[in-house]
Amino acid sequence: MDAISVIRAKRDRAELTDAQIDWVIDAYTRGEVADEQMSALAMAILLNGMNLREISRWTEAMIRSGVRMDFSSLPLPTTDKHSTGGVGDKITLPLAPLVAACGAAVPQLSGRGLGHTGGTLDKLESIPGWQALLSNDEMMHVLREAGAVICAAGDGLAPADKKLYALRDVTGTVEAIPLIASSIMSKKIAEGTGALVLDVKVGSGAFMKNLADAQELARTMVGLGKAAGVNTVALLTDMSTPLGLTAGNALEVRESVEVLAGGGPADVVELTLALAREMLAAAGVSGKDPETALKDGSAMDHWRRMIAAQGGDPDATLPVAREQHVVTAPATGLLTGLDAYAVGVAAWRLGAGRARKEDPVQAGAGVEIHAKPGDKVTAGQPLLTLHTDTPDRFAYALEALDVDGAVTVAPEGKDFRPTPIVLDRIA
Amino acid sequence: MDAISVIRAKRDRAELTDAQIDWVIDAYTRGEVADEQMSALAMAILLNGMNLREISRWTEAMIRSGVRMDFSSLPLPTTDKHSTGGVGDKITLPLAPLVAACGAAVPQLSGRGLGHTGGTLDKLESIPGWQALLSNDEMMHVLREAGAVICAAGDGLAPADKKLYALRDVTGTVEAIPLIASSIMSKKIAEGTGALVLDVKVGSGAFMKNLADAQELARTMVGLGKAAGVNTVALLTDMSTPLGLTAGNALEVRESVEVLAGGGPADVVELTLALAREMLAAAGVSGKDPETALKDGSAMDHWRRMIAAQGGDPDATLPVAREQHVVTAPATGLLTGLDAYAVGVAAWRLGAGRARKEDPVQAGAGVEIHAKPGDKVTAGQPLLTLHTDTPDRFAYALEALDVDGAVTVAPEGKDFRPTPIVLDRIA
Repeated sequence: MDAISVIRAKRDRAELTDAQIDWVIDAYTRGEVADEQMSALAMAILLNGMNLREISRWTEAMIRSGVRMDFSSLPLPTTDKHSTGGVGDKITLPLAPLVAACGAAVPQLSGRGLGHTGGTLDKLESIPGWQALLSNDEMMHVLREAGAVICAAGDGLAPADKKLYALRDVTGTVEAIPLIASSIMSKKIAEGTGALVLDVKVGSGAFMKNLADAQELARTMVGLGKAAGVNTVALLTDMSTPLGLTAGNALEVRESVEVLAGGGPADVVELTLALAREMLAAAGVSGKDPETALKDGSAMDHWRRMIAAQGGDPDATLPVAREQHVVTAPATGLLTGLDAYAVGVAAWRLGAGRARKEDPVQAGAGVEIHAKPGDKVTAGQPLLTLHTDTPDRFAYALEALDVDGAVTVAPEGKDFRPTPIVLDRIA
Repeated sequence: MDAISVIRAKRDRAELTDAQIDWVIDAYTRGEVADEQMSALAMAILLNGMNLREISRWTEAMIRSGVRMDFSSLPLPTTDKHSTGGVGDKITLPLAPLVAACGAAVPQLSGRGLGHTGGTLDKLESIPGWQALLSNDEMMHVLREAGAVICAAGDGLAPADKKLYALRDVTGTVEAIPLIASSIMSKKIAEGTGALVLDVKVGSGAFMKNLADAQELARTMVGLGKAAGVNTVALLTDMSTPLGLTAGNALEVRESVEVLAGGGPADVVELTLALAREMLAAAGVSGKDPETALKDGSAMDHWRRMIAAQGGDPDATLPVAREQHVVTAPATGLLTGLDAYAVGVAAWRLGAGRARKEDPVQAGAGVEIHAKPGDKVTAGQPLLTLHTDTPDRFAYALEALDVDGAVTVAPEGKDFRPTPIVLDRIA
């Protein structure tokens, strides 16, 4: 077996054999297959594709490159959610304690943000004292204490994926459905959850810009999950406009706490409840209804226990950015568009995100949204408030919003219906 | 400008701009574009192609990565030949002095063999004392002395190609017509020849297995040459069976000297004359006829001067391998096939070629051919003689010949016409 014959096979549109896939992932993890060979293979996969059998074997090989976690000693069934990433997507924060409050355990391994989509760990780190890095024992302790844990994935989990992900990032091979699907699913399967709900985002602020691509990705991932014995379901949800009224770290934690307190923006509540019901159903748990758990304070109780168990102070004042700049509505009428990608890039440029993975993020930076598509607006009224500690970034962030179509106002009376949140379900 | 945007453009089937091509070749030569990025781009080019404008710009950028030689101070027009590589292809050896004898200067930069096709420099190095490595001054001296020089290309010539060639070799991206064409032509144009004849081989022993691919490669290279002001013509020639009656280093030198003495196998003489006439016509030289120069000893005289000017002894006894093994005809009848690839691999395995570029070659090793397609053979008569210094290699070489169809004998009386040598001409 050698790298060139595997590359040539995929280049010439052959199906890779199990032995070829197992060998190439193992040899790449060990450094025997060089980066320049793996990137040529990744490009051949991007352009010539892989079928579900190949992707499934590729995923298994990446799982086998590291350790696999085991939560079978817990008294509760485990269930988890993965989002493919969007703007203002803080759903994991209220969702994990909410599902725990309804009787399932949520062992959520999360990542940091890179590019225009925020990272769950970056958001939680705006809570004073909160720790993302836990040992396996600490993770189990938080799970027993609060029913849910959100923490960083250890180095031992799917190391082949870690190496390949970094390589794809610099070689123009990120946008390959087989590689995206196997990357996500290898980590989630290795994490050891019994059930999994995928939130596949569609629209300008998402990886997948159109429904057909998102459906293909969702079908692929659901197939991989089921093949590995994880009960997997996908919701395809809208990411043409930001979720909720905030994009940024502390800003999104504040909004999440509002949802846990029984309030919060309607779209965030709707998606949180939809995903919670899917997670509970996938785990076979039919206890408390999630809507009740938001109203009766039990979800908030699990949130406070989870944050405290990871060293955070749930009562601490959250950081606030030092400077604000208000963007007003350009005309009077009906707001028909607020582009997710433009808002995401603006929040990122204000300091909420990072350009390179070693950069720090600002806890207080981001964008507050005062009107959403479907709302009436008056010329000159506040539309967005930009937050940053470094006001020299305002101009750079405003540039992102100036892009054609970031804000669209139509004459009043125009027939307009906002896109629904949940677009499709694949099981 | 950055590597990822260039990779993405070609990945998404866009035409690369002049600025993108210039930047990526320059940045790769300087090490700013990493190997793993260039290999992803090479795979995207292999699968999505480049048009003639892109290939032409790519070739120019590779030429500009190094020095360009200049023979304008010579009193004679320069003309050169490049073969895409075949089995028993010793044509350069008699051809260069023959063309010099007819009144043009031949500055031939050659390479070493890798894989089943032999290298011109390896062949000449079997002549005691002969030196492949010349300075520019020494090269000019040999040209003035003998009218022809065959030597190694210096490091300064198209260094981007050198780096990319080594990368393609290990990343499964060798077989891309745009990359093959630009690699060959960047070196030949940088070499500074005024006219160029391409010998594009077609058949089992060649890179291009079928005529259509070879025609595309030839058309591309002729277009590149003309765009760069080099008067370029291509002959497409048969490589389904070895050229002449020898494949190996000293074995092929001996056969070349026979041709220069007015003898030698008919196919080698025919192709040598055809290429010599093209080279002279392309250079606008119409002096002595090449056939006369072979008969009257003037081609041999130029050969002796060329070899001597590079330190070789034209009268020295050539090395002979220590061991021989005879392969006999399997049946009585008409020899209809002697596969070039199988004979090439056998010669390589006997020690005439190298597996890695740092390996030494055996001067005496190779295959002697006693019958060619079209000849009548009798069961048990000698068909091939295998030569090596290391007899433990015989079994490994015989294995290559045992492959189905390496030797085909048909009942006598079968209607069979050997393939002509010259299949097509592209100008």
